Amino acid sequence: MTSDDIAGFFARRAELDLDAYLELDFTFECAGDPRSAAAHLCSEQSTAQWKRVDVAEDYRPRFGAKVLELEATPLPHGFSYPVANAPTGGVHRCRAVIAHPHGNFGARLPNLMSAVMGEGVFFAPGIPLVRLEDIRFPASYLASFDGPQFGVTGVRRLLQAFDRPIFFGVIKPNIGLPPAPFAELGHEGWLGGLDVAKDDEMLADAPWSPLAERSALLGDARRRAEQATGVPKGYLANITDEVDRLVALHDVAVANGANLVMLNALPVGLSGARMLRRHARVPLVAHFPFIAAFSRLGAYGVHSRVFTRLQRLAGFDVIIMPGFGSRMMTPEHEVLENVRACLEPMGDIRPSLPVPGGSDWAGTLETVYRTLGTTDFGFVPGRGVFGHPMGPAAGAASIRQAWDAIRDGVPLTERAATQTELRAALAHFRAP
Amino acid sequence: MTSDDIAGFFARRAELDLDAYLELDFTFECAGDPRSAAAHLCSEQSTAQWKRVDVAEDYRPRFGAKVLELEATPLPHGFSYPVANAPTGGVHRCRAVIAHPHGNFGARLPNLMSAVMGEGVFFAPGIPLVRLEDIRFPASYLASFDGPQFGVTGVRRLLQAFDRPIFFGVIKPNIGLPPAPFAELGHEGWLGGLDVAKDDEMLADAPWSPLAERSALLGDARRRAEQATGVPKGYLANITDEVDRLVALHDVAVANGANLVMLNALPVGLSGARMLRRHARVPLVAHFPFIAAFSRLGAYGVHSRVFTRLQRLAGFDVIIMPGFGSRMMTPEHEVLENVRACLEPMGDIRPSLPVPGGSDWAGTLETVYRTLGTTDFGFVPGRGVFGHPMGPAAGAASIRQAWDAIRDGVPLTERAATQTELRAALAHFRAP
Repeated sequence: MTSDDIAGFFARRAELDLDAYLELDFTFECAGDPRSAAAHLCSEQSTAQWKRVDVAEDYRPRFGAKVLELEATPLPHGFSYPVANAPTGGVHRCRAVIAHPHGNFGARLPNLMSAVMGEGVFFAPGIPLVRLEDIRFPASYLASFDGPQFGVTGVRRLLQAFDRPIFFGVIKPNIGLPPAPFAELGHEGWLGGLDVAKDDEMLADAPWSPLAERSALLGDARRRAEQATGVPKGYLANITDEVDRLVALHDVAVANGANLVMLNALPVGLSGARMLRRHARVPLVAHFPFIAAFSRLGAYGVHSRVFTRLQRLAGFDVIIMPGFGSRMMTPEHEVLENVRACLEPMGDIRPSLPVPGGSDWAGTLETVYRTLGTTDFGFVPGRGVFGHPMGPAAGAASIRQAWDAIRDGVPLTERAATQTELRAALAHFRAP
Repeated sequence: MTSDDIAGFFARRAELDLDAYLELDFTFECAGDPRSAAAHLCSEQSTAQWKRVDVAEDYRPRFGAKVLELEATPLPHGFSYPVANAPTGGVHRCRAVIAHPHGNFGARLPNLMSAVMGEGVFFAPGIPLVRLEDIRFPASYLASFDGPQFGVTGVRRLLQAFDRPIFFGVIKPNIGLPPAPFAELGHEGWLGGLDVAKDDEMLADAPWSPLAERSALLGDARRRAEQATGVPKGYLANITDEVDRLVALHDVAVANGANLVMLNALPVGLSGARMLRRHARVPLVAHFPFIAAFSRLGAYGVHSRVFTRLQRLAGFDVIIMPGFGSRMMTPEHEVLENVRACLEPMGDIRPSLPVPGGSDWAGTLETVYRTLGTTDFGFVPGRGVFGHPMGPAAGAASIRQAWDAIRDGVPLTERAATQTELRAALAHFRAP
């Protein structure tokens, strides 16, 4: 590109109709001139060839992505990670804000993904390492999406659970257990105090646990638990499957008594989720398989909050995400960024309930709550309920006892003196 | 895990019914004991809790993933990339082959992805860095998939193009050009010798270029070009969109004269592609947006050939992938691995035509051909045809002239002496 060509991909906000643009935050490492690299990043993701040969025209003003902000810092030791065939030259680490005209593709998730994390982004000349850090949508773009049908308020109303976290439990053993004993475990969990008993993300419509049979047994167990406890309960059925089976599986599961359904969002595809959202009669829950494959490293890939925003846009009422603790290998700030992406204002799109998960049990609840600073979250133990030494009812009770202690301002160890299930949890799970 | 627990996740091939297992090649970096890390990698992706509390049962024999091979090498300088909250202890780089029982989830792409690149793989204790390097399917699993409907042979028959590469051209300007002049460019490309004129992956059903209008004009232009040249031509329409629009867009595009259709495979979702495959009447072409986000780095993510295999399984007849040259930042061996993944035997699944692309023009064809060692590939210039200084017909002609020279064993520079279009390409594109 000439310096004139490069200048064609820079703009100031005041020059643009910002309602026509997505704003993308990128960090990248480039070899050579950072301005040229940033211009290529814009060109490649929009008008890579902005005129016909021998025709006086220029598609950049309307269709070109534009650099709004650019900061560059030299990296004297070169790229953070080795990349095959990486360009040579002085290396800079850059932060760029890019305005991308959404009229190039419209309010379609696959086309949005192709634009903001596609070939143009990951194959821009001079930029072997790039990470899409965040995305912001103007009101006009958000207006084309329905977002969550129930949202946090709707999920709370369904479960009649207010002013506290929502207590989920992942029924374990997750793989191999036939539907009848599996349903019995869920039933025990509900009796002990779970709001929602859920299928593991690896358990879907399996030959040894067909969804129709499992959801019928769980639906029946749920109604029995509601009668026994006098409060609404949730059975979250994992209907992750090929996209052309989602509607049928939703219908079977819901008819049988599932009152929430789950998709592994990225493996199914966000577009499949958006399709199901138009049909769904119960809250949709997203689980996070595959997202870590492109979001864990600090200098490459796509930040997980981008996918949290896209999942909210697609219509998930509940978003399960990697939470705190060393097991999940996720920085605390990233968990908080994802929780905020669920709850903060987003046009007319309802909030999604964030569920930061990972090896939780009664003893981790207080830290999660204090760190989030809100009760608008879900708590999702697996073994912390279903691996409790006194069984699932006791496991669930230990969680509720922990919450009551937190609410009352009483230390868990003090409360454990009188509450057997909590005491057993502290003894069993606190072991290294 | 105890050492007995760890041993429960190791097996020898002779002990297993291998037809019941996928084989997964992983590389990973772990802190602490590599055997324990590998056992956790199996446990987390299958039976994370393999028995109920106080019930004498063990789901590992049937449902557990098993380590078949494990090699570990100390990494004295620690992990290759920094990871937040990474575990501490002596670091090893490991290579493991894991047998994963596909009966856990069945022949469903979203569930397959959840199992082999989901939470269990990327959140195994002790393993902050892991890469799924390859996947092998037993015949019983492959038998549940249709794979490509046309395959390499069918695409060749459609285009009556044998014993040579298939010549694609990406019509440029890709974004902004209205359908009428866009179709005119395609027409010129066909007259010059393109087999297939294609939409860019960023151009789909856009308000300023509706697919219905574009495909009607291109369909008409294609038929005129066929009459003028006497040979079949292909118009490849990009129908990337929300999954519930794919069938309708396919039908509109095909009725209007598109005789191949393209999806951005990962943004749409492989399951959406598999759904379309059941309906499609023309070859399906995959483009690669987003795949680089998790496949570029050597020590983390998922190797791109895994997605090449999954795209072939989903039913893509043609797979466009990052090709050779510094622009694509892809090691030569990786391009070759992806090409082989398209062409090598895979049960009864037909081969897909590999199209390694990236900044190609007449002068890069010989290297691509020599490096691949086969004519079973597609060649897909964009600017190399539509940025040719004499226009698209000359751009396409320059590619065909280059191929004729290669076939005849004549150096391009020698052939350029008599062929104007090739000479102009060499002068224009060879400039730095």
